[in-house]
Amino acid sequence: MSDFTPPVSDFRFLIHNVIGLDTVADLPAFSETSPDLVDAILEEAGKFASSVLAPINRTGDQEGARLLEDGTVRTASGWKEAYAQFCEGGWQGISAPEAEGGMGLPILLGAAVAEMWQASNMAFALCPMLTAGAIEALGAHGSEDQRVLYLSRMISGEWTGTMNLTEPQAGSDLSKVRSMAVPTGDGTYKITGQKIFITYGDHDMTENIVHLVLARTPDAPAGVKGISLFIVPKFIVSDSGEIGARNDVTCVSLEHKLGIHASPTAVLSFGDQGGATGYLIGEEGKGLAYMFTMMNNARLAVGQQGVAISERAYQQALEYARNRKQGRDPQTGDDAPIIIHGDVQRMLMRMRSSTEAARALSLYAAAQLDLAHHLEDDKARANAQARADLLIPLVKAWSTDLGVDNASLGVQVHGGMGFIEETGAAQHLRDARIAPIYEGTNGIQALDFIGRKVTRDKAGALGALIADMRATIADVTNGDAKQAAGTLSNALDELGKSTAIVIERCSADDRMMQVLATPYARQAALCISGWLMLRAMSVASQNGVSDSFQAAKLKSCQFFFDQLLPEATFMATQIKNCTSIELHETQPLF
Amino acid sequence: MSDFTPPVSDFRFLIHNVIGLDTVADLPAFSETSPDLVDAILEEAGKFASSVLAPINRTGDQEGARLLEDGTVRTASGWKEAYAQFCEGGWQGISAPEAEGGMGLPILLGAAVAEMWQASNMAFALCPMLTAGAIEALGAHGSEDQRVLYLSRMISGEWTGTMNLTEPQAGSDLSKVRSMAVPTGDGTYKITGQKIFITYGDHDMTENIVHLVLARTPDAPAGVKGISLFIVPKFIVSDSGEIGARNDVTCVSLEHKLGIHASPTAVLSFGDQGGATGYLIGEEGKGLAYMFTMMNNARLAVGQQGVAISERAYQQALEYARNRKQGRDPQTGDDAPIIIHGDVQRMLMRMRSSTEAARALSLYAAAQLDLAHHLEDDKARANAQARADLLIPLVKAWSTDLGVDNASLGVQVHGGMGFIEETGAAQHLRDARIAPIYEGTNGIQALDFIGRKVTRDKAGALGALIADMRATIADVTNGDAKQAAGTLSNALDELGKSTAIVIERCSADDRMMQVLATPYARQAALCISGWLMLRAMSVASQNGVSDSFQAAKLKSCQFFFDQLLPEATFMATQIKNCTSIELHETQPLF
Repeated sequence: MSDFTPPVSDFRFLIHNVIGLDTVADLPAFSETSPDLVDAILEEAGKFASSVLAPINRTGDQEGARLLEDGTVRTASGWKEAYAQFCEGGWQGISAPEAEGGMGLPILLGAAVAEMWQASNMAFALCPMLTAGAIEALGAHGSEDQRVLYLSRMISGEWTGTMNLTEPQAGSDLSKVRSMAVPTGDGTYKITGQKIFITYGDHDMTENIVHLVLARTPDAPAGVKGISLFIVPKFIVSDSGEIGARNDVTCVSLEHKLGIHASPTAVLSFGDQGGATGYLIGEEGKGLAYMFTMMNNARLAVGQQGVAISERAYQQALEYARNRKQGRDPQTGDDAPIIIHGDVQRMLMRMRSSTEAARALSLYAAAQLDLAHHLEDDKARANAQARADLLIPLVKAWSTDLGVDNASLGVQVHGGMGFIEETGAAQHLRDARIAPIYEGTNGIQALDFIGRKVTRDKAGALGALIADMRATIADVTNGDAKQAAGTLSNALDELGKSTAIVIERCSADDRMMQVLATPYARQAALCISGWLMLRAMSVASQNGVSDSFQAAKLKSCQFFFDQLLPEATFMATQIKNCTSIELHETQPLF
Repeated sequence: MSDFTPPVSDFRFLIHNVIGLDTVADLPAFSETSPDLVDAILEEAGKFASSVLAPINRTGDQEGARLLEDGTVRTASGWKEAYAQFCEGGWQGISAPEAEGGMGLPILLGAAVAEMWQASNMAFALCPMLTAGAIEALGAHGSEDQRVLYLSRMISGEWTGTMNLTEPQAGSDLSKVRSMAVPTGDGTYKITGQKIFITYGDHDMTENIVHLVLARTPDAPAGVKGISLFIVPKFIVSDSGEIGARNDVTCVSLEHKLGIHASPTAVLSFGDQGGATGYLIGEEGKGLAYMFTMMNNARLAVGQQGVAISERAYQQALEYARNRKQGRDPQTGDDAPIIIHGDVQRMLMRMRSSTEAARALSLYAAAQLDLAHHLEDDKARANAQARADLLIPLVKAWSTDLGVDNASLGVQVHGGMGFIEETGAAQHLRDARIAPIYEGTNGIQALDFIGRKVTRDKAGALGALIADMRATIADVTNGDAKQAAGTLSNALDELGKSTAIVIERCSADDRMMQVLATPYARQAALCISGWLMLRAMSVASQNGVSDSFQAAKLKSCQFFFDQLLPEATFMATQIKNCTSIELHETQPLF
């Protein structure tokens, strides 16, 4: 088992010095978010993550969640107690409005805290992550009664929430949802159908679970416009909030998964006894649109899982490399830890540098969401929203791909011990592997980026961002950062060329868009996070941070520009070659 | 569960048309290796792999190998029967000399066949793979008596072999081996010590197991020169070959691993009852040198595991992508399989193209081993050996890295189903993850390449290979291949520059060598397999192969040059940047 050391100093550095807490804290909504408060929350969350969640990560993996004979799910040992402490701390409501019982803190801070939950125990953290999604959907579209009855109890963590979207035939393509919702005449609906891949679809940590369910009303049009969103509580709740009879929804099985064993992934059956009682959220036919309102936060949260697992895998690999003796020190001839080897250092630096870059990108995107919600000026708010929309598919896809790569490198650093489950390094790889898949596969993220976010927008939002990046480059004056600024400037030239190809070739050619999506999104992610690394480098070469933090940060940044950013050129070549070769233009590859 | 279709047509194409069977079959040793015989063996092996080994791959993973209370190991259901059939086919001895009961066929053909064993069932195929290593070590260094007593029974498969190298403190650094071998005066030794990570260290498929064990004799010098190699049979064998008493070696536990569950990875304890009887192979103090004689074949075999798992993962992903309907055909509006999406095709092409390139490289390296063993001219033999030595660390490192990447892509193509163990896609990733680690980590392979194979040799063997590659480029005349030849030529220019940096900077700087090793080895692997893809392209654009094979091969090659080979430029940039930045020259990164 490995310890988890919360990367609080990097969060503080990024929030205060790179992202600029002031831009967020100056928002009227966050007038009470002082730098001291931010630091105190980070410390407190770090403590909870390392002392409560991290110690049960490995045992949870071994034990897993189990479906009992009575059809209920038992979580792994320690889960229920940890969840109770999580609620006591008020953590579920960190970014929820104070008026509804939340802490009312910026999404920026909530994101930093969430990364620590995910790093310490991804299987546990999925429960609050899904509840947060349900809170957001219900908060935006629920009636006053629904808010009173469900929302406050979800924000407090008293009840958890689930998202019931997927069915066996309806995964990436939700237009194929078949679950039915038939009005009963008393304002409620009878829900029937089967939903799969329902995270924490059942568990024993709370008295009730609030399922949000996509289903089709009778006579609804085919496709996405016929889908509505319903509240289906596990136990019926009376108007006064008392828990009543069991609703007609049962967990029929749990999936046997590669990783996140302690997170119960349920098959839920609705209406085996005639129909589960469901309550319509908002209007009929708008279910999918409502889901979209929570998509940015959910994708950001999954992206952070990639950052988190990278951080955890890095810490464990670093610890092992410092302690495992094998071979000799060339100077002294003494037994030496494997970290002295340049190749081991390269692996560790890949992990560290990419993790820090992806963290910077995710926190920057989170800050854009705060600005998009709370800036006073309409135009400025729209711009921030456009920037968040642009960045979030990159956060999701790039960070989760990195999560897999870094967890795999973590195994490699361990040598043979990495393949042995007791070591715990392999668990990170198994856990990490789901993140590129769920909440929209990374292929879908890349398509969202190249299509909705760049091509349809004629690169407006991207162009504005690149202008900001160019301004940073022009502002950099000190030595090492100056050289990095030049490297980034060249990378932006190439991104400009790729973007021109994309705009020209993809606007009327969906197939070309699909082929270019993945390398283009990766090229953009590398450049934009390079920008944030340049800002970090620029600040860190000045001062105001501890010497050891400064030295480490400068090495991470330098490594990024020397060793990682050049992948953007590789991606640019892939893009160029796709369009220059006749074969690819005219013929599918299969 | 997924079916396995043996890629016999690609083997045939590569062996006959690209590697050139004639260069191997013309060797006097292989005068009977006719093209028809080669095809017949490939067909037969393919049948066995797909009908006997593939069907128990998934069940073996679920069931695993188990250590029983009596200290013996029970293999998974079907294992014993499959192994018996494997022996009946004579497959263990495919490349062993006919004089010792083998088939006496080229390593080239043995390698193709071995890839099919690994692709159909990696956990099973590890047993013959380890036995082959033991056969080679014993064949090269065993006494006449030892050959009679053990070797023939191992070649027939009647007994299996193991390699006992690793101890808890002695992994990559075998100089730290502590197991002891004390002479008893009757020519035998008493062996004591604990060995870990012993593949098929115990099992129930054969009556006896021949353990080859590294141990230290009393008064032996410290370090690698004090280590000797011993035969320690599980059951003592009389001079007439009768199986006698149980030797003092016991399996004390099996590792709980990420993958290859059906391959028992044993902790073996030698000498709990006073000492296991061991028989010295060759001379004292030469144990590690003897191990080195089998290293090329063993590393080639592990490299092939990477190719194999890539092939298997590709086939399964392709099948899924062709059948999983999600979304609509943009032309017809009908439900469409996900393979219509450009991004899915990109993932599948990455898998297919890299698999074919890595296969070509591994078979080419295998052919060099045949030439190195059997060419008549001393100089030509030495040149072939130098080329094999040069290529094999690349085969091992690059192919096994690809194995992990491709298995991971295979999971991704499956979407959510890929994360569910029942699908079987995740097993490939779990199985693949060991190959970059064992038989010398990929970091060690890269160091071997950059150090022993390039720098020490002042790029002599590499230079000769590059000259051959340039000659191919000059010979290419037809259209598409001509363009690819130009691309490869540029890549070779860059490889030349990287090599110049390596020779100049690494000859006297071990640390720099360690830092450059991984990107340099990868750059070289991409270029050299690119050469084989160019040869494949050149042949395939002519004729003599079926139209559908030809079309698919041309697409694979085209994709390699457009989308995969450009990674070599990325690696070249990493190398250049390592040496140009002051920080990296003078300071360790940690």
